[in-house]
Amino acid sequence: MNEFDYIEKYLKPLTSNIARNLKDDAAIFKQKSNYDLVISTDTLAEGIHFFGHENPKDIAKKSLRVNLSDMAAMGAKPIFYNLSISIPKKKAKNFIEKFAKGLCEDQELFGIELIGGDLTSSLKDINITITIFGETLNKKSVTRDGAKSGDLLFVSGVLGLSKIGLDNFYSKSKKFDSAKKKYLLPEPRVNLGLAINKIANSMIDISDGLVQDACHLAKNSNLTIVLDIEKVPLPSFINLKKDLLLDAALYGGDDYELLFSCRPNYEKALKNISNEKGIDLTHIGFFQDFHEDYIKLKNYNHSYKKKSYLHF
Amino acid sequence: MNEFDYIEKYLKPLTSNIARNLKDDAAIFKQKSNYDLVISTDTLAEGIHFFGHENPKDIAKKSLRVNLSDMAAMGAKPIFYNLSISIPKKKAKNFIEKFAKGLCEDQELFGIELIGGDLTSSLKDINITITIFGETLNKKSVTRDGAKSGDLLFVSGVLGLSKIGLDNFYSKSKKFDSAKKKYLLPEPRVNLGLAINKIANSMIDISDGLVQDACHLAKNSNLTIVLDIEKVPLPSFINLKKDLLLDAALYGGDDYELLFSCRPNYEKALKNISNEKGIDLTHIGFFQDFHEDYIKLKNYNHSYKKKSYLHF
Repeated sequence: MNEFDYIEKYLKPLTSNIARNLKDDAAIFKQKSNYDLVISTDTLAEGIHFFGHENPKDIAKKSLRVNLSDMAAMGAKPIFYNLSISIPKKKAKNFIEKFAKGLCEDQELFGIELIGGDLTSSLKDINITITIFGETLNKKSVTRDGAKSGDLLFVSGVLGLSKIGLDNFYSKSKKFDSAKKKYLLPEPRVNLGLAINKIANSMIDISDGLVQDACHLAKNSNLTIVLDIEKVPLPSFINLKKDLLLDAALYGGDDYELLFSCRPNYEKALKNISNEKGIDLTHIGFFQDFHEDYIKLKNYNHSYKKKSYLHF
Repeated sequence: MNEFDYIEKYLKPLTSNIARNLKDDAAIFKQKSNYDLVISTDTLAEGIHFFGHENPKDIAKKSLRVNLSDMAAMGAKPIFYNLSISIPKKKAKNFIEKFAKGLCEDQELFGIELIGGDLTSSLKDINITITIFGETLNKKSVTRDGAKSGDLLFVSGVLGLSKIGLDNFYSKSKKFDSAKKKYLLPEPRVNLGLAINKIANSMIDISDGLVQDACHLAKNSNLTIVLDIEKVPLPSFINLKKDLLLDAALYGGDDYELLFSCRPNYEKALKNISNEKGIDLTHIGFFQDFHEDYIKLKNYNHSYKKKSYLHF
């Protein structure tokens, strides 16, 4: 099979009208004046973001979900996506069919469709780039710079689970199953993002660890976050020390939970949304006028701040 | 330098308002009802689409230009683009600064800006994915399926030059300079695409050789193209056999010239546009009702049809 066969057989069935059956040089999207289009790109590189021996279905889902998480963080409704895969000739046959199956399942789950992209060979490693598109009404995206002094800091779910899953990926103990699953298949908080997009005045998804991503919020609003370590929601694992869990939560990556600020009077509304969606929303800190550092860790018994993952 | 430093120093200066200084999880684009947004993606993989030892400035320009060529083929005005680079840690320092310089120069030349993307490490090879965005008034994109029986087939510039450049990339003879330049830095026909978008009723850019790309036009309009080999515009090279030049034109890649159909009464208007833009527009064939093959080669003295480049 050549690239046209792969596209025809596995990718065309995933496309929307905008893709016009992938027969043109580009997709054509009719604009609507009362909406903003929200656009984001995430790449997954073999050996960096995934091992390569995972089921291609799961790699597909993770590729989509890290992008969906960006839409969640903007409070935007995801509508379609663009996909580029570079893959060595030898790997293509076994990979593309299963990869497309994974896309198909998650497309249905999240209500999105493919609009185009590129399929090329590569020398050695697989590289997957997805550009995702979402919509909000004009000026209703939640950015990273809207927090005010006195605002509360909330986070969804539990933190560090994905890092525990990665660190114990080859463990045969069943106690790591949920953690490994969270690492392989993050749950982008798309519905939560939509539910709180009138409440949150700044928001980010946690992909690089709580401390680094909280810093982004503080820095963009030019404020200091006081983060109460004792309030950080951790997963429970028998036999794992609390310090290790905390380390995973603060500096581990791939959690894809939402971290956001809001005025103090929204606490009750958030409790209702939390109950309705079945997702924990935990008040873990607050914003104050900038002083010395973007982030202060309260109740933290270490003298150091570790670095989160950096590519370079 | 980590990825945030690279982004801050080299990529942020390239961005438009839509990127909001690259500080959010996504870019925000205000839609306009009377326009269509035209979206296309092309990836360049090291060792496949480029050697890797070229000047990173030229790699940047080629990455942009192959994408700009897709906008030209749609008759769309390019407005902004999204960029993802995966690059091994060791190569980043020497590459990114020069790469950004190349983007900067071509942004000015083509009037486009960066809106976002991703920068990650990779294990071994560089992978560059650009998604480009253009605009047309509603329903004014030129697609690949609008040709009618009796239409004429035109092509811009000369064909095969880029393939000659690639085949003689390591030659020290000056006679290949223009060919090597065309291979390294294709000239996307953006202004031509805009000038003929009311005349062309189907269009494609030639990236995979004239025969394969002409087939796409014929197939999508369900017609047969009769292509007169003697009319195909070839570059002139002393000492290179005509057969070799013709082979490069028919089956070589990377020409990025525009191939389009139009009603016969537009021949004079095209001559005026050709004179005005200083770009040859050559009438190389016509469309007829589908019969047996999508493409018939007239005056072709070979019994075979070679295959154009396929990735898999």
